[in-house]
Amino acid sequence: VSEVNRQWLLKRRPEGNLSEADFEYKEADMPSGGLKAGEIKVRNVGFLCAPTMRNWMDPPSKNLYPSIPLGQPIMAPAAARVVASASEGIAVGDRVLGLSTWQDYAVIPGGGMRRPTLIPEGISFLEGIGRYGLNPMTAYFGLLDVGAAQSGETLVVSGAAGSTGSTAAQIGKVKGMTVIGIAGSKSKCDWLTEQCGIDGAIDYKSENVEKRLSELCPKGINVFYDNVGGEILQAAINNMAPRGRIVLCGQISSYDNDESAEGPRNMMRLVYGSIRMQGFLCGNYADRFDEATTQLKSWTESGQINYREDLRVGFENLPNSFRSLFDGSNIGTLLVQIDDSATETT
Amino acid sequence: VSEVNRQWLLKRRPEGNLSEADFEYKEADMPSGGLKAGEIKVRNVGFLCAPTMRNWMDPPSKNLYPSIPLGQPIMAPAAARVVASASEGIAVGDRVLGLSTWQDYAVIPGGGMRRPTLIPEGISFLEGIGRYGLNPMTAYFGLLDVGAAQSGETLVVSGAAGSTGSTAAQIGKVKGMTVIGIAGSKSKCDWLTEQCGIDGAIDYKSENVEKRLSELCPKGINVFYDNVGGEILQAAINNMAPRGRIVLCGQISSYDNDESAEGPRNMMRLVYGSIRMQGFLCGNYADRFDEATTQLKSWTESGQINYREDLRVGFENLPNSFRSLFDGSNIGTLLVQIDDSATETT
Repeated sequence: VSEVNRQWLLKRRPEGNLSEADFEYKEADMPSGGLKAGEIKVRNVGFLCAPTMRNWMDPPSKNLYPSIPLGQPIMAPAAARVVASASEGIAVGDRVLGLSTWQDYAVIPGGGMRRPTLIPEGISFLEGIGRYGLNPMTAYFGLLDVGAAQSGETLVVSGAAGSTGSTAAQIGKVKGMTVIGIAGSKSKCDWLTEQCGIDGAIDYKSENVEKRLSELCPKGINVFYDNVGGEILQAAINNMAPRGRIVLCGQISSYDNDESAEGPRNMMRLVYGSIRMQGFLCGNYADRFDEATTQLKSWTESGQINYREDLRVGFENLPNSFRSLFDGSNIGTLLVQIDDSATETT
Repeated sequence: VSEVNRQWLLKRRPEGNLSEADFEYKEADMPSGGLKAGEIKVRNVGFLCAPTMRNWMDPPSKNLYPSIPLGQPIMAPAAARVVASASEGIAVGDRVLGLSTWQDYAVIPGGGMRRPTLIPEGISFLEGIGRYGLNPMTAYFGLLDVGAAQSGETLVVSGAAGSTGSTAAQIGKVKGMTVIGIAGSKSKCDWLTEQCGIDGAIDYKSENVEKRLSELCPKGINVFYDNVGGEILQAAINNMAPRGRIVLCGQISSYDNDESAEGPRNMMRLVYGSIRMQGFLCGNYADRFDEATTQLKSWTESGQINYREDLRVGFENLPNSFRSLFDGSNIGTLLVQIDDSATETT
């Protein structure tokens, strides 16, 4: 096989906002050589652009997330077709979700929290990485397991119009909660209240978030699902109800710049409120992905979960698509399809 | 009865460090009038000086802790003898632990998390408020329940030579953990390692806490029991192991000044490490106080828990005793005995 293996490499560590010059295009040889036990080789079909990948472009740190080596392909969640396997549960021809890299063909390591999982029959590659993919599953486990959300409680979601946030907010409604979303424009807020059935929305760009939260959540916030961090996390902490739970899903306010967001300042409120703040990763729940997919599919088919997708096509569009996550121009789950098989369901 | 009821009132809101002039001595009439349902009237016998009382002297805030009204007696945990009762489970003559006030005779409200609890037979007033009182019980529930401490794990305790911290550290040893303490002097560190059997101690006044933690906890911190907050909390977060638990017990670094301590800055470490940070109050566990007392008594009698007490005598010494919590001069659980019956055990 003399096919070219297209790649997008991390050319340099981004400083401040991401720039086109942080990435380098390369046409490499096909990955060759044998696979180590547990590894699989895949043909990548579609990639999810997830904000947290921006963290992976930072230098190695003590922050427990991976650091993409300079000159190597960008690491990214992908839907892919297996072309070779040294993994016991995975065969050639299987369709998988995995932590892959921005190239046509990639080797994915096995084992651990990031092991590849099979895309269920009947769900396309794009649905597997998008509509029922990591973002909505993150929302599912974060809200119900980490947040221990209960019917009748008040849920606040930051980044609520985003891919993960909008699912968390709508699962809250399915579960009988009062749900308030925080988002970055009037149109995003309108979509949440008018299309998604959310009880209230706060535009953080034009409203005082802390004050609006106290008005919209008179009994306090029982669960805060946080995708944003920084000042919005602080505003929520100041409105948490006793025994409240803060689900730390992401901190997008601090990803695309060089400063670490200020942390919450009044820890004594957490002490006296017996408030829990808990970080988590979707991968912690890899054993329960099928449960999440089944639930999300059922809620989607009954019209209870609205979903917006921003599908881009073409390998060449990967860096620019990813960058649009941070300038506010992207609406919905951002996918980049790089192979025509993306809608196949078996 | 024409006995005088001595009182210490909150004269003004402390600004910066506590001052003698923040308190006012008064000789008042005995509290009279009927009791509301659930209330009891007590003869206070001894008070616990707890650092968190400093927070209660602040103006009312959204921080979920109580604010002592200006001109009213200082609120404080006390061991007391019941002289009148409108509470179903409590009779005249009973000995109780409760959230009382700095005066000879006080009315304590019933119900809720702060309801009075009986001091078990055979345990003196002083033991009830000190050796087996709120501080060690806080350590017990915080470490084992909130922190879910497990044998073989690494525990770090800040404020480790203090009343609560030293108990938490020693319970960690009883449970088979590797225990590192952080304290504010060489002699406190020596006491921890030489007398209490703690595996290592860090003097935060002369050592780089973050660096020392990484040396002493090569596999990371599984449980961080935090009494201090601020920069020490940050140093611990930077050394937490994945799935670690941070027990938010107190934030003494920020009590006795007007600034709110900076919060932890790298929340993404909590996300990627699936780390839990949880506030709590001992009162959450009021139903299990007997269990804690029984356990603490057994470990104390078998020599597994060292205990240091700083017992002061005399009602007039209340404000000055309390202030010594914040200047580093106090060693051990700080009690003020105001009645000769303090050693009675029935």
